[in-house]
Amino acid sequence: MEEISRAKSFGGVQSVWRAQSVKLRSPTRFGVFLPPGEGPFPALFWLSGLTCTEDNFIAKAGAQRAAAEHGFAIIAPDTSPRGEGVATDPAGAWDLGLGAGFYVDATEAPWAAHYQMYSFVTEELPTLIAGSFPVDPARFGIFGHSMGGHGALVAHLRHPTKFRSCSAFAPIVAPSQVPWGRNAFSAYLGENPAHWAEYDATALVRRAPSAAHVLIDQGAADQFLERELRPDLFAQEAVIAGQQVTLRRHEGYDHSYFFIASFIDDHIAWHAAALRD
Amino acid sequence: MEEISRAKSFGGVQSVWRAQSVKLRSPTRFGVFLPPGEGPFPALFWLSGLTCTEDNFIAKAGAQRAAAEHGFAIIAPDTSPRGEGVATDPAGAWDLGLGAGFYVDATEAPWAAHYQMYSFVTEELPTLIAGSFPVDPARFGIFGHSMGGHGALVAHLRHPTKFRSCSAFAPIVAPSQVPWGRNAFSAYLGENPAHWAEYDATALVRRAPSAAHVLIDQGAADQFLERELRPDLFAQEAVIAGQQVTLRRHEGYDHSYFFIASFIDDHIAWHAAALRD
Repeated sequence: MEEISRAKSFGGVQSVWRAQSVKLRSPTRFGVFLPPGEGPFPALFWLSGLTCTEDNFIAKAGAQRAAAEHGFAIIAPDTSPRGEGVATDPAGAWDLGLGAGFYVDATEAPWAAHYQMYSFVTEELPTLIAGSFPVDPARFGIFGHSMGGHGALVAHLRHPTKFRSCSAFAPIVAPSQVPWGRNAFSAYLGENPAHWAEYDATALVRRAPSAAHVLIDQGAADQFLERELRPDLFAQEAVIAGQQVTLRRHEGYDHSYFFIASFIDDHIAWHAAALRD
Repeated sequence: MEEISRAKSFGGVQSVWRAQSVKLRSPTRFGVFLPPGEGPFPALFWLSGLTCTEDNFIAKAGAQRAAAEHGFAIIAPDTSPRGEGVATDPAGAWDLGLGAGFYVDATEAPWAAHYQMYSFVTEELPTLIAGSFPVDPARFGIFGHSMGGHGALVAHLRHPTKFRSCSAFAPIVAPSQVPWGRNAFSAYLGENPAHWAEYDATALVRRAPSAAHVLIDQGAADQFLERELRPDLFAQEAVIAGQQVTLRRHEGYDHSYFFIASFIDDHIAWHAAALRD
C-alpha cells in the first residue's frame, strides 16, 4: 500500500492511496480523510457515480469540513478496476466498464476477471482500512451518489451490521427497472433478471429492510430523475416493508457535485447521529 | 455573453459565462456565484493561480456555502486569454502564457496582443459584471491564490476604492524578486525591472498603502513558500508603510485547494465585515 498524495485539510489529513486489490486483480486507488485527533474514528465509505474516480468526491464534495467537525473518517474508493488487462467497453461507453463498475461482482466474460467491485467495497476495502487506519469498524456507515447511491443502499441492506448507517444522493434505486442498470447488469450479470435482485435496492428492501433510518436527497431538476433514478420506487417499497426512509426533494438542484456539496453537511450529521452509540 | 452552465448551489446559483473580451481580444470565461435573494449583492472577485482556469475555484474551494450565508456574489475569471491567435510559451512552460497571465498588461511581443489581464480584471470585467448581474459596485472586494493573490494585492493597492477589501492565500507578493515573477515579467513587461513596480505588491505598498486591513493566509508546508511567495516581504513593507495587514501562518498546510477550502470561510467573513457599511 502506497501513499500517492497527502494534504492537510480542516485540521485533518486528506490522503490518496494505491493498493493491489486481490478481488479486483488490479491496483486500485482510494481516498482517506482522517479528522484531527487520535481515533479510533467512525468511518464513512463514499461510493461515487458513473465516470468518477476517487478524486471527484475528495475535490468537489466539500465533505472534509463536516467530517473534521464530527470526527469522522471518510474512505472514497474508485468506481471500477483499471489498468492492464481490465476489460473496457468496445464502444467506449461511459456507463459500462471503466468508471462504471456498478458495485457488483461480475459473473460474465470479459468482466468477471476484474469487475468484482461488490466484494472489494464490502469486504476487502473495509478490512484493509480497519487494519491500516485508526478507524472503529463497529461504527462504519456508507453513502454515495447516483450509481454509488445504488451501491451504498445495496451494501447497507445486505450488510446492515457492517455498514450500520446509510444515505444517498440521487441514487439509482431500482437498477433492474431502468436503462443504466439493465444495460450494466446484462453485461456484468447476464441476461437473466433473476440474477439481478441481489444488487437491486428496491428488491432487497422488500425482502429484508434494515433497522436503520435511510436518508435520500434528490434534486428536482436532476436530468436523470425520471428515467434512471426514481427514488420514489425505493421509498414506496421501504414504506411497505417497514424500512425507515426519509426522501427529500430539493427544488432546482441538478445531478452535480454542486447539489452534493449543498447537502453533504446534513448527511455527515445524519451518520454522526446514527453512529453515536 | 453566453451562459455555459448553471447549477443551484447552497440556495444560490453557480453559473459559468463566456464573453468576447475587448481587452483580451479573445473569448473568455468566468464563473458567477449569486447567493439566494434579489440583490444587489456585494461581490468578491477571485483570481486563481498558475495553470488554473475559472473552474478550479468554482469546483474545489467550497466558497459557495459561506458566500450564500453572507449574501455575497463571487466572480471567478480565467487566468489568461485563450484561443485562436493567443501566444503560448514555445517551451510549453506552465508558468508563462496560457494559465499564467500574471494579471499584467503585457507590453512585449508576442504577448501584448492578448495578454491584457490587468485591464480585463480591473476594468472590463467589473464593468461587465456590474452591468449584467445584481451586484453593488460600491461593495466590491478582491482575493486570490498564489499568482492570483499577487493579482488581488496589486489590484487592491492600485484601485482601493474599486476593490475596497482584499485578502490572499499564499500570494506571490514580490514578483520582481522571485523566479516565477522575474521570468513572467521579463517576458510580458521587458527586461527593465523599473517597469515592473506597478505590478509588485511589495513595491506598491511602500509607496501607497491602502486604508483596508489585508488578510493573508499562508501554509507553512507550502513547497513554494521560500522561493516564490515570501509573504513576509510584503508584511514587513506593510508595517513600515502603515498598511494594516494580518499574516497568518498555518502549520502543516500546503499550496493546494485543500488549504484554500480550509480557510475560505474566514476570508469571506473578513470581506463581509469590511464591506458591511
